[in-house]
Amino acid sequence: MQIMKLPRVIGRLCEKFERLPGVGPKGAQRIVFYLLHNPESELQDFAEKLIALKRETCTCEVCHNIAESNPCGVCEDMSRERNVLCIVEQPLDLVAIERAGKYAGVYHVLHGCIDPLNHIGPEQLYLFDLMRRLEGVEEVIIATNPTMEGEATALFIKEMIKKSKEGEGIKVTRIGHGLPVGANIEYADGVTLNRSFEGRSEL
Amino acid sequence: MQIMKLPRVIGRLCEKFERLPGVGPKGAQRIVFYLLHNPESELQDFAEKLIALKRETCTCEVCHNIAESNPCGVCEDMSRERNVLCIVEQPLDLVAIERAGKYAGVYHVLHGCIDPLNHIGPEQLYLFDLMRRLEGVEEVIIATNPTMEGEATALFIKEMIKKSKEGEGIKVTRIGHGLPVGANIEYADGVTLNRSFEGRSEL
Repeated sequence: MQIMKLPRVIGRLCEKFERLPGVGPKGAQRIVFYLLHNPESELQDFAEKLIALKRETCTCEVCHNIAESNPCGVCEDMSRERNVLCIVEQPLDLVAIERAGKYAGVYHVLHGCIDPLNHIGPEQLYLFDLMRRLEGVEEVIIATNPTMEGEATALFIKEMIKKSKEGEGIKVTRIGHGLPVGANIEYADGVTLNRSFEGRSEL
Repeated sequence: MQIMKLPRVIGRLCEKFERLPGVGPKGAQRIVFYLLHNPESELQDFAEKLIALKRETCTCEVCHNIAESNPCGVCEDMSRERNVLCIVEQPLDLVAIERAGKYAGVYHVLHGCIDPLNHIGPEQLYLFDLMRRLEGVEEVIIATNPTMEGEATALFIKEMIKKSKEGEGIKVTRIGHGLPVGANIEYADGVTLNRSFEGRSEL
C-alpha cells in the first residue's frame, strides 16, 4: 500500500509561502488549500501582481525610498523643507511618519539597522552616502526603532556625523521616547517609564 | 506638500495577501516588503507555481480528494481495502491520516462540514454521491472534526446512511474522542474528559 501524499505542486507552493515572514508550515498549507478554492483567473491575477512588484517599483537614488519614480515623490516635492533630514530604517517607517502628516522635511531610508548578530554592519546599509546629502542640512532627526539595534544605529550615525567635516554645525536629534498616547502608566514597562522621565518637558 | 504614499503595485499586492487566511493587513505589508528584497527571478518562480496550482491538480471524481491524477492515488491503489470508507472534511485531514500510516481503506472527502451559520448545508458538500459508493462497503468511519459542526455532520451522515436502502447492514462508526496521547489529565477540558470516560475500553 502506498501512502497518499500531497500533489507536488501543492508542496512546492507551500514551500514558497512558508518562507514568507509570519507564515509557518501550517499557515502555508492553509493558504494553499484556500487558494485551491479560488478560480484560476484569481490566481493568474495574483501572479501578475507578484511579477509587477519589482517591475513597477524602484529605489529612489536620493533617499532610497521604494517608489514609483526615481527620484521619489518626497525628493521631487519642491515644497518640502530640505534643511531637515529624517533617517528611518524601512520604507514602511517613512509611510507611517507621512501618514501622521506633520513632518515636512525629507527622508533617508537605511533599509535596516546595524545588527551584528545577523551580520548587518554599516556597509550593508545606505549609510555612507548619507554624508553626501548633508550640505545645507541643519537638523538630522534619527527615527530608527527604539530597539537595541535601532539605538546602536542611532549612536553610530550621531558619531559619524559629528566626526565628519560635512557634519559640522548640524544638529543631530533623536525622536522622543516615552509613553504612547492613550497608554496606561500602570501597565507601562520600566524601561519606557524611565525614558519618559528622562525625556520630560516643562509644562 | 503632498503626503508620500506607497506605490500602487505594493498596495495592490498587499490586498492580495491580506485576503489569505491568517494574514492580516500588517502581515501582508511585511510580506510584500520582504518580497521587495527578493530577486525578480524568485518572484517569477513564485508566480509560476501559483498559476500551476490549479493547472496541475484535479479533484478525484471518486473520493473528491485533491490529487495529481483522476482517480487519485488512493482510489487507484488496488491494495487498498474497498470495504472500509473513511469520511473526512478536508484533503489535509486525509493527508494527516495517511501520514499516521495505519488506515488501509479508501476515503471520501466532503470539502467542508454542515455549518448553517456560514450557509453551508448538505447540498454544498460532496455528500449525496457518497450513497453511490456504499456498494460493497462494510464499515463507514466518520472522521469529521470533533467540533460542533463536525459532530452535526457526523450525525447527519449516520442518519442518511441508516435510512437509505444502500446503507442497509453497513456499520457506521465515529473516530474515538478523548485525551490526546501525551496530554495531561490535570489540564484537560471537561468536555474532552467526559468523552474519554464515555469512550473507555476494557484493559
